[in-house]
Amino acid sequence: MAPIARNAILIRILKIGLKGITAIALTAVAPIAVASPDGETGFVLNSFSFILWGALVMWMCAGFTMLESGSVRTKNASVICLKNIGLYAIAGLAYYTLGYNLMYIDVGSFFGTFTLFYSSTPEEIALLGGDSAALGPVIESGYSTMSDWFFQMVFVATTASIVSGTLAERVKLWTFFAFTLILTAIIYPIIGSWTWGGGWLSEMGFQDFAGSTIVHSTGGWAALAGAIIVGARARKFRKDGTVKNTPPSNIPVVTLGVFILWLGWFGFNGGSQLAMDSALNVVAMSIILANTNLAAAAGVMVAMMVSRPILGRVDLLACLNGAIAGLVAITAGPDIVSHQWAIVIGGIGGLVSTAGVKLLENLKIDDVVGAVPAHLFAGIWGTLAVCIAGGAKFSVQLIGILAIGAFVFITSLIVWKILDMTMKARVTPNVEELGQDVAELGIEAYPEFMIMPDNDPD
Amino acid sequence: MAPIARNAILIRILKIGLKGITAIALTAVAPIAVASPDGETGFVLNSFSFILWGALVMWMCAGFTMLESGSVRTKNASVICLKNIGLYAIAGLAYYTLGYNLMYIDVGSFFGTFTLFYSSTPEEIALLGGDSAALGPVIESGYSTMSDWFFQMVFVATTASIVSGTLAERVKLWTFFAFTLILTAIIYPIIGSWTWGGGWLSEMGFQDFAGSTIVHSTGGWAALAGAIIVGARARKFRKDGTVKNTPPSNIPVVTLGVFILWLGWFGFNGGSQLAMDSALNVVAMSIILANTNLAAAAGVMVAMMVSRPILGRVDLLACLNGAIAGLVAITAGPDIVSHQWAIVIGGIGGLVSTAGVKLLENLKIDDVVGAVPAHLFAGIWGTLAVCIAGGAKFSVQLIGILAIGAFVFITSLIVWKILDMTMKARVTPNVEELGQDVAELGIEAYPEFMIMPDNDPD
Amino acid sequence: MAPIARNAILIRILKIGLKGITAIALTAVAPIAVASPDGETGFVLNSFSFILWGALVMWMCAGFTMLESGSVRTKNASVICLKNIGLYAIAGLAYYTLGYNLMYIDVGSFFGTFTLFYSSTPEEIALLGGDSAALGPVIESGYSTMSDWFFQMVFVATTASIVSGTLAERVKLWTFFAFTLILTAIIYPIIGSWTWGGGWLSEMGFQDFAGSTIVHSTGGWAALAGAIIVGARARKFRKDGTVKNTPPSNIPVVTLGVFILWLGWFGFNGGSQLAMDSALNVVAMSIILANTNLAAAAGVMVAMMVSRPILGRVDLLACLNGAIAGLVAITAGPDIVSHQWAIVIGGIGGLVSTAGVKLLENLKIDDVVGAVPAHLFAGIWGTLAVCIAGGAKFSVQLIGILAIGAFVFITSLIVWKILDMTMKARVTPNVEELGQDVAELGIEAYPEFMIMPDNDPD
Repeated sequence: MAPIARNAILIRILKIGLKGITAIALTAVAPIAVASPDGETGFVLNSFSFILWGALVMWMCAGFTMLESGSVRTKNASVICLKNIGLYAIAGLAYYTLGYNLMYIDVGSFFGTFTLFYSSTPEEIALLGGDSAALGPVIESGYSTMSDWFFQMVFVATTASIVSGTLAERVKLWTFFAFTLILTAIIYPIIGSWTWGGGWLSEMGFQDFAGSTIVHSTGGWAALAGAIIVGARARKFRKDGTVKNTPPSNIPVVTLGVFILWLGWFGFNGGSQLAMDSALNVVAMSIILANTNLAAAAGVMVAMMVSRPILGRVDLLACLNGAIAGLVAITAGPDIVSHQWAIVIGGIGGLVSTAGVKLLENLKIDDVVGAVPAHLFAGIWGTLAVCIAGGAKFSVQLIGILAIGAFVFITSLIVWKILDMTMKARVTPNVEELGQDVAELGIEAYPEFMIMPDNDPD
Repeated sequence: MAPIARNAILIRILKIGLKGITAIALTAVAPIAVASPDGETGFVLNSFSFILWGALVMWMCAGFTMLESGSVRTKNASVICLKNIGLYAIAGLAYYTLGYNLMYIDVGSFFGTFTLFYSSTPEEIALLGGDSAALGPVIESGYSTMSDWFFQMVFVATTASIVSGTLAERVKLWTFFAFTLILTAIIYPIIGSWTWGGGWLSEMGFQDFAGSTIVHSTGGWAALAGAIIVGARARKFRKDGTVKNTPPSNIPVVTLGVFILWLGWFGFNGGSQLAMDSALNVVAMSIILANTNLAAAAGVMVAMMVSRPILGRVDLLACLNGAIAGLVAITAGPDIVSHQWAIVIGGIGGLVSTAGVKLLENLKIDDVVGAVPAHLFAGIWGTLAVCIAGGAKFSVQLIGILAIGAFVFITSLIVWKILDMTMKARVTPNVEELGQDVAELGIEAYPEFMIMPDNDPD
Repeated sequence: MAPIARNAILIRILKIGLKGITAIALTAVAPIAVASPDGETGFVLNSFSFILWGALVMWMCAGFTMLESGSVRTKNASVICLKNIGLYAIAGLAYYTLGYNLMYIDVGSFFGTFTLFYSSTPEEIALLGGDSAALGPVIESGYSTMSDWFFQMVFVATTASIVSGTLAERVKLWTFFAFTLILTAIIYPIIGSWTWGGGWLSEMGFQDFAGSTIVHSTGGWAALAGAIIVGARARKFRKDGTVKNTPPSNIPVVTLGVFILWLGWFGFNGGSQLAMDSALNVVAMSIILANTNLAAAAGVMVAMMVSRPILGRVDLLACLNGAIAGLVAITAGPDIVSHQWAIVIGGIGGLVSTAGVKLLENLKIDDVVGAVPAHLFAGIWGTLAVCIAGGAKFSVQLIGILAIGAFVFITSLIVWKILDMTMKARVTPNVEELGQDVAELGIEAYPEFMIMPDNDPD
């Protein structure tokens, strides 16, 4: 059940569905009507699945915003809100203008076309205009053109959201937006074309159901490259080797963010079944939601248990990040039939993200929200786990992880470097000290609350 | 594709659908099954579309609450929560008791009936009771009675939500509730009957798909009338001509509110297709969601770019309001086929709302959250934009805008004036100084946080 | 229309549906196609209803988290976040491992089987593997196995969420988790087996559509038992008979929580129709959503009106709790045809919860969020109200309420007592004084905000 490419699997499932119907119709053993939903009903259900689950994926942007806004210090809590609503706007416009075509239209091995804009098919427009002869051709495509676009568009926004968290509190607003534009218009669409677009990785048999690697590790690699170029926050890593404590400014808001992400993930993974026009598809979708939930739950519990030995205390942030890591880990294969495996995969995700936070600290890489451990490290784990639980080929999965990682990381490094040389990637020490809210935006997140002086020795 | 009246369009679409099926069945060119979902399946899909998208529209009330609660100063952040949950409760009860009948039942040119309550049809009740003969008549209506009621009910709540934001920090709690009752039981239903109810504006051909004018401008006019009667907050507009700075008390919560509204708007516009029982409808719905998202994104980006020249800085609040203005602007015609037009319409919405904030300030009208620029000004723009992008007749659109505007504004002015004379519209200077939370409710929003003294010179 | 047991009603509805079709087919009076959605389409719609509405019920956990996190004092606002995400994780894993089987598999009169784990049927797995012959048997079951599991799983989490609110600010983290495990793996599944599982109460005709008693009162009884064992917060009830004021730390977040619960409740009650494959089901579902909304609205309004005489002021928290109480009260019979009854039932719910808060105070039982009044008291009222509005038998309803109450309360008392003797139920006075955030987690909810000293005389 693991997809080769998004379009490919849809076709495959439709075929299985049709085969099924034929067989049963011939043998006539079924006691009740077993016809698949007829063409138009199936078309409606498939399209609705895309837009509805897609709306939940859009909601994940609110989740990232809350998670990040609560995780930064008070003095940077407004600017991260602007970065997040801005990145969602940019991602949608960039993907409409260029990204979708580069990812899905006439994909060779390495990318699609560099054409502008995307729209409904002429047949759909004719149907809307009242031309009933267009109904047949429209239905044949299986789902409405823009429903698919909408679903793909919200995915690219997720990738960009990952980057903003890691680089919070010191990356310049406009530089971040410039990187977001390139990430969502070009970098993500290219690796997307290799896989879901039907390119070379897809042809090799690389399996990544809803994007542990394609979406989450991509975001993680881009964030990691940015963290290296932009550098750590001032005095985060002290000369004596200790790490400055920079606690989240608003824990309930961080928690809300994680719940939003958890809910949105049902759309992220459920909608990635890409069709809802048959019993087979909805059976798979139900399994996907159950596994998604179990993996996240396991991520929470394992992180809770390992946070004391690894981090020295039962750590709320580790638990919250464990939920995300569990979700990321299961994303490559949420359609596996065994729920115990889902628990194991998600649980190990929680372990990976908790240990990963420690690892990054030791490497003196400053990731404000722990996005690299949760999205990149757990994404790699999840993509490999499909070999055990879902029968993917280890070598192919590894090639996919490495190829996408190398491409995204190196491209991002170059882009960040160029942006740093031209626009500066990092705010001035003075802005960083004052906080970006006052210095860049002239607006405080909580202007009336009295703020504790920062007494943590530098 | 622009609707004349909500019920009218549904019938029109059903007709197109049936025509299509007949034609194809006759010519027999379609290679796969092309029958529209059969009557009962279509009935299920239409009804489900109403209740599910309607649930997302209800969620917009949470969005307005967060937006407004974060936008006011700390001392009024609790009372605005009460106003918002109260208005949603009142709107639902008032629309059930009177409003729906006034808007939709036996509408002449200017209003429906003044009858009490609303309920399922006798056929539906018979069907629930096990009378299978009722199935046919039930299905013939196209959707379940209360699913439509539910969807219309959440719309009226949106109108009321707009008012509470503008008048925050000084309107009296019970006066606001009294106005809400009249707005949702009478004023909105009357203008609704002119349009979606099938009255005179509908017959002229006025086009307003999901309510740029009918919902959003109506709320905006009612808010504007209130702002004039209630007056500006104390010392907001100083004698020396300067404007007192009253920054939002909680920016992450404002941002969350806008994300909630953005998500809810997919239901607002998507559900306004009013049917999901054919390929045509779901193709339209997909286009609607794509356009809704693109317009909001463009609103954010344009507001970001114009906020510096207009307001003197890259303004987060302008960007957030730009998203709303983009959403309001596209609401009159989200079903247009051209996505570039959606971007232009939303982008100009962002410009209109940003400039509108400045305009209101110059007019010394105090709108705490910028609801009048985002909902009224962008609503007018969006309703006119349907002429360019969707083929509506300019004169008719203008008549609709002016007629609805005149009726709502004048009626609201009168109601606010009467309320002011009987109940007082405004809290006492002492209550305003202390804040409504402590003075009216006896509860502070954040009782344990130390609050900065208000040092802004008056 | 009131269900006897969840599985039983589904079968009953399917039968009515089939009868209807046959009758109409025979008499041939229907002018349009009246066939029920064919087997596979119905299967898709039923399963989708479970997972989609179930996702909204999962969202209620975020609602409880926000409600509770905003209701506690600042010093305990982080630990309640951890309790809530932890309980949702534990509930899901426990219900997967043991609970579901105990509730639904081979239920005798008093419980199901003590077997481990749950999964898709062999037929479903065969279908996923491409075996088209499995399609017929799969469809015959009416919905996908894991979609039903998912929907039931999110319900058990709701029960656990209720407990955390009542016991906030003094129950130990790990003791609470241990109780959650027993509640969700054993206590709730056992009473669930008596009712929805088809056990002895179901056979008597006990009616509780979506769980006023089964879910909400169960949570309330477990919370009440915990409140008795754990005791009131230090100095909450002073020696002079007065009650210490412990206002919520973050009102907007409490309000957000209630809006989330209100939205989620559409899934809670709507999804409990358990099927969406016929006009009958979606007519019922639409009525359910309308009633759910009207009852909540009435709960708000009545609480607003009675809070002044009962509590001495228009009380925001009473209004918010009134919404929840209205929702709880209607949950036993949201499918009643009369909407006026829904308003009455919800309104009385708002009265019950407001008076209940006062009652608990008089009994010196400390319930931080008023969960016992809203979930237990209003749940009892709602379950009895089905006698008036929905034709249930009073004696049977009373037996159900008492039996479930006695079992859950006594079992919970014993479990809490054992936990108290082994793990300690309550934090030390020192931890309570400092707050659990700093003392147990080492993380503050809002570390940078300056906090008012607690000057309320003890």
